[in-house]
Amino acid sequence: MSSAHGRPAVVLLSGGLDSTTVLAVAKRDGWSVNALTFSYGQRHAHEVERARAVAAKAKVARHAVATIDLAMFGGSALTDATVPVPKDRATEAMSSGVPVTYVPARNTIFLSFALAWAEVLGATDIFIGVNALDYSGYPDCRPEFIEAFEALANRATRAGAEGGARFTIHAPLMKLHKREIVALGASLGVDYGDTTSCYDPSPDGGACGRCDSCQLRRAGFSEAGITDPTRYAV
Amino acid sequence: MSSAHGRPAVVLLSGGLDSTTVLAVAKRDGWSVNALTFSYGQRHAHEVERARAVAAKAKVARHAVATIDLAMFGGSALTDATVPVPKDRATEAMSSGVPVTYVPARNTIFLSFALAWAEVLGATDIFIGVNALDYSGYPDCRPEFIEAFEALANRATRAGAEGGARFTIHAPLMKLHKREIVALGASLGVDYGDTTSCYDPSPDGGACGRCDSCQLRRAGFSEAGITDPTRYAV
Repeated sequence: MSSAHGRPAVVLLSGGLDSTTVLAVAKRDGWSVNALTFSYGQRHAHEVERARAVAAKAKVARHAVATIDLAMFGGSALTDATVPVPKDRATEAMSSGVPVTYVPARNTIFLSFALAWAEVLGATDIFIGVNALDYSGYPDCRPEFIEAFEALANRATRAGAEGGARFTIHAPLMKLHKREIVALGASLGVDYGDTTSCYDPSPDGGACGRCDSCQLRRAGFSEAGITDPTRYAV
Repeated sequence: MSSAHGRPAVVLLSGGLDSTTVLAVAKRDGWSVNALTFSYGQRHAHEVERARAVAAKAKVARHAVATIDLAMFGGSALTDATVPVPKDRATEAMSSGVPVTYVPARNTIFLSFALAWAEVLGATDIFIGVNALDYSGYPDCRPEFIEAFEALANRATRAGAEGGARFTIHAPLMKLHKREIVALGASLGVDYGDTTSCYDPSPDGGACGRCDSCQLRRAGFSEAGITDPTRYAV
């Protein structure tokens, strides 16, 4: 594993299982982590507090929380309280088509802000916890999306105009199953009790146990043979 | 000129000369205009009020103003009050290198939000007033940037994942000189008195007359032989 020797990177951190694992990978690989979290009008705003806890425990170099309003556009169960979060879906249903929990252009927006911060920091490396295997319905979690954003980053920026440093978008979980992500994080000492995955938590942050995200998390821990610290409602 | 027959498009509208002209072009071509403006912590926040005036006069279908904080990252004279806006620069200086008024990844962020809104509206067309001729220093105003964003849009979205409709990023001013932009807008009835260009206006919105943007605007009107309604401080 090559070391980044303390060079700065921007790590997108939602406070969920995947991005928290990515943060641990970035630290393992020697990056100085600048964590970026969004309060975007999500139904599960509780995750912003989880992100703060994760960032503090990981002793990141900087943690920024950007407030943006994606609810103004609507179009997703995660930002529109009138669109119910699907519950108790079978695994096959989760992997066919684009789910209503898809937030239009969310990862494009998140990566754009990460790019802005990276450019100001003099960083050329951005980490994102997308994963194409266990939940293939989100268009902006696929390898071709990440490749297209990397190409864009190298044209959009000062470095792109003047030559020199090239941006790399790191997606270290892209080809891992949830059980492998859990095992990886556990091996790096991640405290998954700090993380949240539920799309539709109770007001105190409790996990529903029935949305796609809860189901995938539970199955991942179970298959990895690791205890999930989450308390589920059902 | 083909007509869009009232199909919806998202038009990025800053309240400046270029984006206001683009809005007029989109209307001429038969698009139902959904104008999107950003309050992003810019020094010249006055332009948001100009955008509201432009959108109202143009009777757009919808006008949304998104609040985002690009000042949190700094790195630009337009978002950092401690970085002075350059004044009285010669034309050659304006066209060499990336100016300090460049806001890192700004157009990437703006287009990302436009993409989100377009996806929710069922629109596949986005208009942006970038221009590569008279002010070539901004990396995110070049044709290769627009092409890269278009490629990204077609991978980032529901349409990209499911096939079907393709996104087009329209940059109708890309290859026009400022004098041609002014003449085009004037021929379409644009009231440039509603627009603002100054990077460093006085508190009442008055134009400084000395920043790059004021100089380019003045020269454009002068070369087009059209009276600039702006009152400049000098």
